[in-house]
Amino acid sequence: LAMHPSACPRRLLPLSLGLFQGALLLFFALFITYDQPSTQEEDANVVANQLYGLFPFFQDIQVMLVVGLGLLLTFLPRYGFSGLTHNFLLLCFSTQWALVLQSLLHHLHHGQVHLELHSLLIAEFAAVTVMISAGAILGRTSPCQLLIMAACEIPAYLASEWVIITHLGVLDVGGTITIHIFSCYFGLGVSKALFGAAQHSLHPKETPTPRSDFTSLLGTLILWVFWPSFVAVLCQPGDAQHRAILNTILAMSSSTISTVVASSLLEKDGKLSPGHLQNGSLAGGVAIGVVADMAMPPVAALALGSLSAVTCILGFKFLTPLLARKLTLHDHCGIHNLHGLPGILGALASVVAILVASEDTSMWGEQGAGGQALCQAAGLAVAMGGSLLTGLLTGAMLRLPCLAQPPERLCFEDSLYFKIQDETERPELGGTTEEGVLVLKE
Amino acid sequence: LAMHPSACPRRLLPLSLGLFQGALLLFFALFITYDQPSTQEEDANVVANQLYGLFPFFQDIQVMLVVGLGLLLTFLPRYGFSGLTHNFLLLCFSTQWALVLQSLLHHLHHGQVHLELHSLLIAEFAAVTVMISAGAILGRTSPCQLLIMAACEIPAYLASEWVIITHLGVLDVGGTITIHIFSCYFGLGVSKALFGAAQHSLHPKETPTPRSDFTSLLGTLILWVFWPSFVAVLCQPGDAQHRAILNTILAMSSSTISTVVASSLLEKDGKLSPGHLQNGSLAGGVAIGVVADMAMPPVAALALGSLSAVTCILGFKFLTPLLARKLTLHDHCGIHNLHGLPGILGALASVVAILVASEDTSMWGEQGAGGQALCQAAGLAVAMGGSLLTGLLTGAMLRLPCLAQPPERLCFEDSLYFKIQDETERPELGGTTEEGVLVLKE
Amino acid sequence: LAMHPSACPRRLLPLSLGLFQGALLLFFALFITYDQPSTQEEDANVVANQLYGLFPFFQDIQVMLVVGLGLLLTFLPRYGFSGLTHNFLLLCFSTQWALVLQSLLHHLHHGQVHLELHSLLIAEFAAVTVMISAGAILGRTSPCQLLIMAACEIPAYLASEWVIITHLGVLDVGGTITIHIFSCYFGLGVSKALFGAAQHSLHPKETPTPRSDFTSLLGTLILWVFWPSFVAVLCQPGDAQHRAILNTILAMSSSTISTVVASSLLEKDGKLSPGHLQNGSLAGGVAIGVVADMAMPPVAALALGSLSAVTCILGFKFLTPLLARKLTLHDHCGIHNLHGLPGILGALASVVAILVASEDTSMWGEQGAGGQALCQAAGLAVAMGGSLLTGLLTGAMLRLPCLAQPPERLCFEDSLYFKIQDETERPELGGTTEEGVLVLKE
Repeated sequence: LAMHPSACPRRLLPLSLGLFQGALLLFFALFITYDQPSTQEEDANVVANQLYGLFPFFQDIQVMLVVGLGLLLTFLPRYGFSGLTHNFLLLCFSTQWALVLQSLLHHLHHGQVHLELHSLLIAEFAAVTVMISAGAILGRTSPCQLLIMAACEIPAYLASEWVIITHLGVLDVGGTITIHIFSCYFGLGVSKALFGAAQHSLHPKETPTPRSDFTSLLGTLILWVFWPSFVAVLCQPGDAQHRAILNTILAMSSSTISTVVASSLLEKDGKLSPGHLQNGSLAGGVAIGVVADMAMPPVAALALGSLSAVTCILGFKFLTPLLARKLTLHDHCGIHNLHGLPGILGALASVVAILVASEDTSMWGEQGAGGQALCQAAGLAVAMGGSLLTGLLTGAMLRLPCLAQPPERLCFEDSLYFKIQDETERPELGGTTEEGVLVLKE
Repeated sequence: LAMHPSACPRRLLPLSLGLFQGALLLFFALFITYDQPSTQEEDANVVANQLYGLFPFFQDIQVMLVVGLGLLLTFLPRYGFSGLTHNFLLLCFSTQWALVLQSLLHHLHHGQVHLELHSLLIAEFAAVTVMISAGAILGRTSPCQLLIMAACEIPAYLASEWVIITHLGVLDVGGTITIHIFSCYFGLGVSKALFGAAQHSLHPKETPTPRSDFTSLLGTLILWVFWPSFVAVLCQPGDAQHRAILNTILAMSSSTISTVVASSLLEKDGKLSPGHLQNGSLAGGVAIGVVADMAMPPVAALALGSLSAVTCILGFKFLTPLLARKLTLHDHCGIHNLHGLPGILGALASVVAILVASEDTSMWGEQGAGGQALCQAAGLAVAMGGSLLTGLLTGAMLRLPCLAQPPERLCFEDSLYFKIQDETERPELGGTTEEGVLVLKE
Repeated sequence: LAMHPSACPRRLLPLSLGLFQGALLLFFALFITYDQPSTQEEDANVVANQLYGLFPFFQDIQVMLVVGLGLLLTFLPRYGFSGLTHNFLLLCFSTQWALVLQSLLHHLHHGQVHLELHSLLIAEFAAVTVMISAGAILGRTSPCQLLIMAACEIPAYLASEWVIITHLGVLDVGGTITIHIFSCYFGLGVSKALFGAAQHSLHPKETPTPRSDFTSLLGTLILWVFWPSFVAVLCQPGDAQHRAILNTILAMSSSTISTVVASSLLEKDGKLSPGHLQNGSLAGGVAIGVVADMAMPPVAALALGSLSAVTCILGFKFLTPLLARKLTLHDHCGIHNLHGLPGILGALASVVAILVASEDTSMWGEQGAGGQALCQAAGLAVAMGGSLLTGLLTGAMLRLPCLAQPPERLCFEDSLYFKIQDETERPELGGTTEEGVLVLKE
C-alpha cells in the first residue's frame, strides 16, 4: 500500500506554521515593546529625520526582496506562481523567526527589547540568506522542506554573522561574506545532502520559455535598480554612504556590459543567453558589497564589477556542468555563479583594498592593515566552512519522508501546491494531460 | 428595431469626459493658485525638508494605486488590459473631481486655494474609495457606468469623511473606516441596486488562468510592499509615524502567514488558493490602519493581522457564496472580504485599544476614553450606513439604459472597449471564435 | 557567395564593447577619483542631507529608465525580451560613455574630476536621448547599429546641450528641449538616412497582441508614476521643486483624460487604442518639462497637458501615416508623437510663459523677458536643427554592411539575438515554423 506522496505535509505545513504563529504571538506579548515616545519636540525631530533617512532605503530593499527576487525565480515556465509565492512566504517566515532569535539574544543580554525599523531590517537581511539558498533546490522541494530549511538556516546565519562581524571584526557593509557567501554554500550543502548522488536529467518543464525568461529578466532589472540601497543602507551616513552607492552603481554597470561581452564570445553563434544576462548583470553588486565603503578609487569598483560578471558567466558555462557531473551537485538557479564566485572575488578584493590602503596605519587600530586583511580572509573561511557544514546537516534532515519531497515527474509544477488552472487542461493549448490528471487525482 | 447596446456610451463617454475636462480648466483658472514662493532662505529650507519628508511616501502610494491595485485587478484572463486601464482612468478622474470639490469647500470657507502636494494626496485618498468600490462590479459594467459611480461616490465620501473625522473626531490615520469600510459598502450597495436579483452563473471568462493569477499576485506583492507608506503618510512625524510603519509591517507579515495556514486548512486537498493569497496577505494592512499610531504593544498588531487574514479567508469561503445565494449580492473581487470584514475588525480593535489605554485619562480630553471609544463605533456606523445608502442610490442610477451596461455574453472581454487583437481570432490558439465575431460585428 | 548576414557583428559587438570597457577602466584609473571625505561632523551632515534629498529622486529615475521605458518598448509580441534588454544595455553603455566625455571636458577645464551622484545623474540624462531615439528604429536594427548610434549621439547631445543651456541660457529644467526634442529629431534623422526610401509594409510580427499591449501599458504606468521625479530632480530645492512636481502631476493627469477623449472620438467604433493610451498619457510630462518651475498658474499645466495629449493622438492618427507615405519616414514607436510634438508645444509654452510673466522685469536680467523668450525659441531651433543633421549623418554611417542590419524577414524577432526558445517551435502553439527554421539554420 503506497503512501500518498504529499498527504502528510498538506496537514503538516499549515499546522506547523500555525503553531509557529501562536508561539510568535506569545513571544511578542512577553518580550517586545515599543520605545516610549519622547515628549521633547527636539527628540521628535531627530526620530523623524532618522526615519526619513532609513525608510526610503528600507522600501527599496523590500521591493528587491518581494518583487525583484521573486520575479527572478520565475524562469521556470510552469513554476512561476510557486517561485513568486515561495520567495514571499520564506521572506515573511524567516524575518519573523530571525526577529524572535535576535530579540531573545538581545533580551538575555540587555533586558527589554524595543522594536525599531532598524531591527526589522536586520531580520530581513537574515531572511535574504534563506531566499538565496532556496535557489539551489527550487522546484524539487516541497514548501515543508523549504520551511524546515529556513528554520535551520536562520540560527546558523546568526551564529556565523556573530563570529564574522562581532568576534572577528570583519568589514562587510553590503553583506558579501555574511549573506551572499554564507547562503550560497549553505544552499549547496543542502542540495548535496538532499539529492545525494541522484543524477537529474533535464526535466521537460525546466526549459525557460520566452515568457518566463521575460519575467525573470524583469526581476533582474528591479534588483539591479535597487541594489545600491541594499549595499548602502547600513553605511555611515555621509561620505561613506555616498561612496557605497556610487561604487555599487559603477560595479553593476560594468557587470552588465561585461556580461554581454563574455556571453556573446562564449556562445557558439554569438547569441546572448538570457540566463547569463539575468545573473551576470547582478554579479558586480554581490562582489562590491564588502568593499563598497572602503577607500579605493572608482576604477576599482568598475574592475571588480567586470571581473565578477566574467567569473559568473564562466561559472555557468563550465563550473556548474562540471560540479553536476563530478560531484552530482545540483544548483538549480546557479547561486554558486551569482553569489558564491563573485562573493569570493569581493572578499579577496577587500583583502587587497585593505593592504593597499595600509599607509594610513591609524585606521586599522593596533592590529594594523595586515591584521585586518587576515580577518577578512578568516571571515571568508568561517562563512564558507560554517555554511557548508550546517547546510549539509540541514539537507540530511530534509530527507525525512514526512516532508514529502515531490516525485520527479511532479517537479516544477505550480498546480501541485496551488489551486491553479492547469494549462495542460486547456484543450486549445494541447499538450499532454498526463500530469494534469495525476495532480487532479490527489 | 433593437437599439445597439453600446452605440450611446461610445459618444457619451468622451463627450462627458471632455466636458468635465473643460469645466476643470475653468475652475482651476478661477480658483486655484500656487503659494507665493517665500524669499527667505530659511523658509525655503523648511519647504524643501517638508517635501523630502512627504514626497517618497507620495510616490510609494502612487505606485500602489496605479501599478499595484491595477495589477491586482488583472485576475480575469481576458479583462487584464481593462482592469489596469479602468483603474488608472478612475484614479485620474476621481482625483481631479475630488480636488475640485475639496477646493470649492475650502474656497467657500477661506477664500483663495493654494495647491500643495498635501492636497493632491488627500484627493487621491478620496479616489481610492472609487477604485475599491469598482472591484464589486468589475467586468460587468461599462466605463460610463464606472464614471458616473465615481462622480457620485466622491461627494458621498467627502461628506462621510467630514462627519466621521471632523464632526465625530474619530481617529483613523490609515483610512480603515473612512476609506476601506466606506468604499466596500458603497460598492456592495451599487452592486445590489444595479444587478438586483439577477442570478449570475459563473461566466466562462471569469476563471483565472495561471498567467492572470500571476499578474494579480504581482499586484498584491507591490501593494504589500508599499502599504506602510499608505498607512503612515498622514501620521505625526516622529515616533507615531515610526510606530505606524512598524505596526503595518507586523500586521501584514502575520496576515501572510495566517493566510497560508487558513487557506491550506480550508481547501480540501491542502492546496493554496491564489485568490486567498492575493487578498488575505493584504487584510492586515486594511485592519491596522485605524490603530496603527495608537499606544498598543507590537503583539496587538501581529494578532490583528492574523485575525483579519483568517476572517478574510473565511469570508471568501463561506460568506461570499452565502451572500450571493441569499441576497443575490455580487461582489466580483471579494471587496467585502478584503476591505469590509478586516475594516470592521480594525474599527473594533480601535475601540478596545482606546479602552485599554484609558488609564492615561488626560489623553482623550474631557470626553474620556469611553467617549472616544463610542466615537469610533459611531464612525463605523456612519461609514457603513452612509455608504450603503448612497451606494444603493448610485447603483439605481447606473441602471439608466443610456449607460449601456454590457450584455452578459460580452462581459469580461477587453476587446469590447479596446482596439485590441482578440485572442480568439488567432487561429493557432484555437478556441471558440463566437465571441470574437460578436465583438467584431459591432 | 553570399556573405552571412550576421556573422560579422556577432564578433564585432562583444569585441568592440570589450575594447570600450578596457578603455573605460584606463580612463577612470587616470582621471576619476572620489572627493576626500571631510573630517568635520557638520560637513558629514550636509553630505548626508544632500544625499537624502537626491537619492530617492535618482532611484525613481532609474526605475523609469530601466523598468518603465524598457517595458514600454515591449509592445512587439516577439521582440519583448529584446526591447527590454536593448534598452537596458543602451542605458549602461551610454551612461558610461557620457561620463567619460563629461569628465574629459571637466578635466580639461578644471583638472581633477571628483565623481558624485549628481554627475552620474547628468550622464544618465544624456543616455536617455539614446534610449528615446532607438524607438524610431526599434526592431529593424542590430545591436551593433544601436551601439554605434549611441556612440555618435552622446557627443552630439553634449554639444547641443552646451549650446542650448550654457551658451544661450535656455531655461529647461525637465529636459523638454535638450532631451526630448533633441532625441526625437535625432532618431528621425537616423531612421531616414538608414532606411532611405524603402517602403516598409506592415510586418506580420509588428502587430501587438493583448499580452504585449499589456506589458507595454505597464511600462507607461511606471513612467507615469515616476515622471515628476524626472522633471523635478534638478530644480532648486524648495518652492520651485514643489511646484515642478505639482505641475507635472497636473499635466499628466489631464493628459490621461484627454487621451481617452481624443482616442475615443477619433476611432470609428469608439474603442480606445492601446497605442494611444500608452503614449498619450505621457505626452503631458514631455511638454511640461520646460515650464515646470516657471511662474505660472496651475491651470496652465492642466491645459498644456490636455493639449499635448490631443496633439500626440492626432500625430498618431494623421501625421505618422502622412510622413510614412510622403517622406517614407519610419518612426516605429511613434517618438515624434510622444517626444517631438509635445516637446515643441512645451517650448512654445515656455515662450508664452516668459512673456506673460514679464511684468517682473528684474527676473530676466538685462536681456529682459523678450530676450529670454527669444532664447527659448533659439534653443528649440538649435535642438531640432542640430539633432536632425547629426542624426542624418549617424544614420548614413549605420548603413555600413559590417553592422549587419537584419534582413526584413528576421526583424522583430527575439531569437535572432538571444538564445531563447522560439515560440514557433512549440508544436502546441502551432503557427508557421518557417521563420523559426530560418533562424535555426544560422
